[in-house]
Amino acid sequence: MVREPDAEADMTGIRPWSAVAARLVDVATGKTPADLVVRGGRWVNVHSREVIAATDVAIAAGRFAYVGPDARHTVGEGTRVIEADGAYMVPGLCDGHMHVESGMVTVTEFVRAVLPHGTTSMFVDPHEIANVLGLKGVKLMHDEAMAMPSNVFVQMPSCVPSAPGLETAGAELGPEDVAEAMAWPNIIGLGEVMNFPGVASGDETMLGEIAATMGAGKTVGGHFASPDLGALFHGYVAGGPADDHEGTRLEDAVARVRQGMRAMLRLGSAWYDVAAQIKAVTEMGLDPRNFILCTDDSHSGTIVNEGHMNRVVRHAIAQGCNPLVAIQMATINTASHFGLERELGAIAPGRRADMILTSDLPSLPVETVIARGQVVAEGGSLTIDIPAYDYPDFARDTVKLGRTLTAADFDIPAPEGASEVTARVIGVIENQAPTKALERTLKVENGLVIGDGAQDVCQIALVERHRRTGAVTNGFVSGFGYTVPCAVASTVAHDSHHMIVVGTDKADMALAANRAAEVGGGIVVVAGGRELALVELPIAGLMSNERAEVVAAKAEAMVAAMRACGCTLNNAYMQHSLLALVVIPELRISDKGLVDVTAFEMTDLFV
Amino acid sequence: MVREPDAEADMTGIRPWSAVAARLVDVATGKTPADLVVRGGRWVNVHSREVIAATDVAIAAGRFAYVGPDARHTVGEGTRVIEADGAYMVPGLCDGHMHVESGMVTVTEFVRAVLPHGTTSMFVDPHEIANVLGLKGVKLMHDEAMAMPSNVFVQMPSCVPSAPGLETAGAELGPEDVAEAMAWPNIIGLGEVMNFPGVASGDETMLGEIAATMGAGKTVGGHFASPDLGALFHGYVAGGPADDHEGTRLEDAVARVRQGMRAMLRLGSAWYDVAAQIKAVTEMGLDPRNFILCTDDSHSGTIVNEGHMNRVVRHAIAQGCNPLVAIQMATINTASHFGLERELGAIAPGRRADMILTSDLPSLPVETVIARGQVVAEGGSLTIDIPAYDYPDFARDTVKLGRTLTAADFDIPAPEGASEVTARVIGVIENQAPTKALERTLKVENGLVIGDGAQDVCQIALVERHRRTGAVTNGFVSGFGYTVPCAVASTVAHDSHHMIVVGTDKADMALAANRAAEVGGGIVVVAGGRELALVELPIAGLMSNERAEVVAAKAEAMVAAMRACGCTLNNAYMQHSLLALVVIPELRISDKGLVDVTAFEMTDLFV
Repeated sequence: MVREPDAEADMTGIRPWSAVAARLVDVATGKTPADLVVRGGRWVNVHSREVIAATDVAIAAGRFAYVGPDARHTVGEGTRVIEADGAYMVPGLCDGHMHVESGMVTVTEFVRAVLPHGTTSMFVDPHEIANVLGLKGVKLMHDEAMAMPSNVFVQMPSCVPSAPGLETAGAELGPEDVAEAMAWPNIIGLGEVMNFPGVASGDETMLGEIAATMGAGKTVGGHFASPDLGALFHGYVAGGPADDHEGTRLEDAVARVRQGMRAMLRLGSAWYDVAAQIKAVTEMGLDPRNFILCTDDSHSGTIVNEGHMNRVVRHAIAQGCNPLVAIQMATINTASHFGLERELGAIAPGRRADMILTSDLPSLPVETVIARGQVVAEGGSLTIDIPAYDYPDFARDTVKLGRTLTAADFDIPAPEGASEVTARVIGVIENQAPTKALERTLKVENGLVIGDGAQDVCQIALVERHRRTGAVTNGFVSGFGYTVPCAVASTVAHDSHHMIVVGTDKADMALAANRAAEVGGGIVVVAGGRELALVELPIAGLMSNERAEVVAAKAEAMVAAMRACGCTLNNAYMQHSLLALVVIPELRISDKGLVDVTAFEMTDLFV
Repeated sequence: MVREPDAEADMTGIRPWSAVAARLVDVATGKTPADLVVRGGRWVNVHSREVIAATDVAIAAGRFAYVGPDARHTVGEGTRVIEADGAYMVPGLCDGHMHVESGMVTVTEFVRAVLPHGTTSMFVDPHEIANVLGLKGVKLMHDEAMAMPSNVFVQMPSCVPSAPGLETAGAELGPEDVAEAMAWPNIIGLGEVMNFPGVASGDETMLGEIAATMGAGKTVGGHFASPDLGALFHGYVAGGPADDHEGTRLEDAVARVRQGMRAMLRLGSAWYDVAAQIKAVTEMGLDPRNFILCTDDSHSGTIVNEGHMNRVVRHAIAQGCNPLVAIQMATINTASHFGLERELGAIAPGRRADMILTSDLPSLPVETVIARGQVVAEGGSLTIDIPAYDYPDFARDTVKLGRTLTAADFDIPAPEGASEVTARVIGVIENQAPTKALERTLKVENGLVIGDGAQDVCQIALVERHRRTGAVTNGFVSGFGYTVPCAVASTVAHDSHHMIVVGTDKADMALAANRAAEVGGGIVVVAGGRELALVELPIAGLMSNERAEVVAAKAEAMVAAMRACGCTLNNAYMQHSLLALVVIPELRISDKGLVDVTAFEMTDLFV
């Protein structure tokens, strides 16, 4: 039986090439008119790596039908004609690995924000929502992704929870779930396999998930966050991950490419990993085909104010990369990596008609954006309507405290009879993700251990929010510099996304936590009993369904409020949200207690 | 349910990466010993396009487990260690498109002949056997391919018969057959879609076959045999073929790559299409990633005396191509094209351990060949046993004349009362595949039209051999130059592979035809009632299961016999076997009669 391609087609929002081939052939040969024709552009050809002047493009059924010197034969009544006037025609940009949740907006709002920047394809790993809602959260993002006017492919999260045994996430995913998800029409592969020690030691769950992905013929994403290029790295490579975006040094990119992985070079809001690694191409002269540009994590403020993949491509060019090579790294290289080289990432017949018009290659001003044959943005503004996505109740009701917290929930009883204690304190390190495992002598008052502003030690609490246990795990943190009675609560709390509350005042901590729960999740800054800032994140406690501009403004106000409380850190909110990330050394907090992430085991609060 | 990768594994002769990942990881990290270690080679890295000195390689389960500076930790008891002594380690070579039948030997014998030349992967289109035996012929080649110690992937033939309505092949294949074959484990895609006018005019059968292939996620092979780079070409590209090996001019390669097809550059026994087209890379500087080297058609003599893909790579280098780029064109580029970039075509962890050791890159002497982790050849000689493949009876009983022919079967009655006639004569053109539609005045004797040595006109007959109809279609041919009473019969008769008999003597024609039938197919040269040469081709009348050296010697003797009969053509046998190829102008013969291949219609013998 011949497979009917239409069924799958409509699910992903665009009919497959084979289903519309007859139409494309007829347009190419002039038998039937195109939907859209762009005339007289400079064709940035990512297959031959050339710019070909005076090229016409004819589009039908959302795909390129003809690309060549003269498309007049494809113009009929009803064909829209755009004069490119010598503008460069660049394939729509692809983000090879990214987390929508990092923008604190929904898929819909993320797409709305980045389409005007020319990003027409995104490969998203909904790792955060998976930790809150499990497979049904992934499915939700998957379904929303398919409703987009651009191409949003979903990677199935691989490590939920990130650290089994050291934390309790909202869900657990394993090989069976991966196998199930691989059958969904819009799943493109496995999300970054972060458990690199597991892969390199032959962990059955990790290898099982990889096998389920390979068995489905899909791409296994990597995440090798170690400078060790010895046995650990070689073991990881042999396990099967096909890419890695955690490299930071030139030698990291070189090693990955030599071993047959694709090096994903990352420029996120806080990641600056392109400059060092792109030297593998610009200075060492390596074949660039296995290098891909990506963002990984972009905050709303970045995408609103600085751009998205256009920002990364510009940055790569600014590092000395040939503009055509840099564009390949954000188009055809990405498409090839995910088995989509005949589907997108190039201006060529049959491919999805995703294209940018730009008047200058190095600076890449994005003047017109076409996605799936539709003009979606002009002059930096969206020209189409993208309806708000309707989220189900289960995605909005995720902050389950089970009760109202009080100041007493944040009491830290001292050992019987002690007048002071030596406590293990999480030490924030400026501009770095790892923390220090500090030890500090703290006073006891009324049987309770208290923070110490003089030592910049305040309280941290991990509030369980997935299973209504009402459990609060208390500890101490140093480095924020808060100087007034205040508290910050956030339901973005990587990776299991309980609620992290940091504060100098227990009443404020209770107030912030209760307020964050009340709005269904988000970030709250409270000082002296007063709410200074609020970022509502009602979708899974991770994302807002407001516009990115609105969220960016609220996030900015939130950071300003933290600063007003005395905080001096560069990325104060980011540091806050990573304090439960029990996969990065040295000391973290989880719903199970204090975690020694060097030894990968629980530890006691008091020495 | 997690898919069980083992089942498919064993069918294709090697277990998938995911099924052996735990073993590979353990070897890479030194927990368990490798099967084979090669020490101290120069790693030709086709991912980074570099040569990396002093590299060790560890192999297990037929795949690379470790590639790096020191594999001593992978050596244990029972590990075979080979000292490379600075030899280049080159990935096993891939032939991107080829017909085994052109070598007139079976898949087994072809592999036996080319493994010592370093060809470890072949992408074969069994178009010829499909014309004789249909889908079961394809399945036969498919199954034999899977029994090989190297990688032989099968493309499903797309155009059987080649010219529906103008000939009756032994079988007909359509979209339903293509869909069925796509589910076989070793089918890699659709064989060259030769009906390019059909694709460019939206022919339903052609687009249906392409859709069935795309729907299965496999590669559609192209064949655009026209210099027209206008609407016909653009229509063909829009229809979906992903590659083309029919280009001959620089502009052909450039046009294909720009349109997002891969340009396959061909060096066969009689095709010399690399030199002109590789200038796209060597002179124009196009990105080489979309260029692939292939042979298409290699005679036994070529593979025995000159080599196979090593001959093509050497030739490309001799044209000025960077050796590393030329090697990429015969390794990773090919693998990527067929969706196998993580399976073969590179020396990197997880890939099939296919590798050549060679002491010199430009001249590429193939000193050691490793396929799937096994040393299969050294110093140009096979070091393993490849058992003869057991062909079923239906593949051996394919020359079905239904009766014994006599001289009278080749009588050509003249129109009533004519003393001479003007006949349409197929004119062979030296060194070209097209023929000329000649008209010649021929004498009538006893009511029969006779050939004329003075005009170099002799008889040609197409003897039906698939359905026991006993039908003989007679005509005239010019250009062979036969000077004695003789006949040549061949059951290799592209593309429907009936039997072509050319002769100056009707008794010899009958003798040759009957003898070819008696041996189950082959090529027979008879002169004056005596057999001068015989090449037995008992498998489908197309292939011998003798060694390639034996077949090459017999083929050489056969060509010498044709020469002894007065034939002066450079490629006499090839010309003979193409006279029924009713897709190439101008005049051909089929079981239906004389075919005007310019008008694509039947025509009369007499003007």
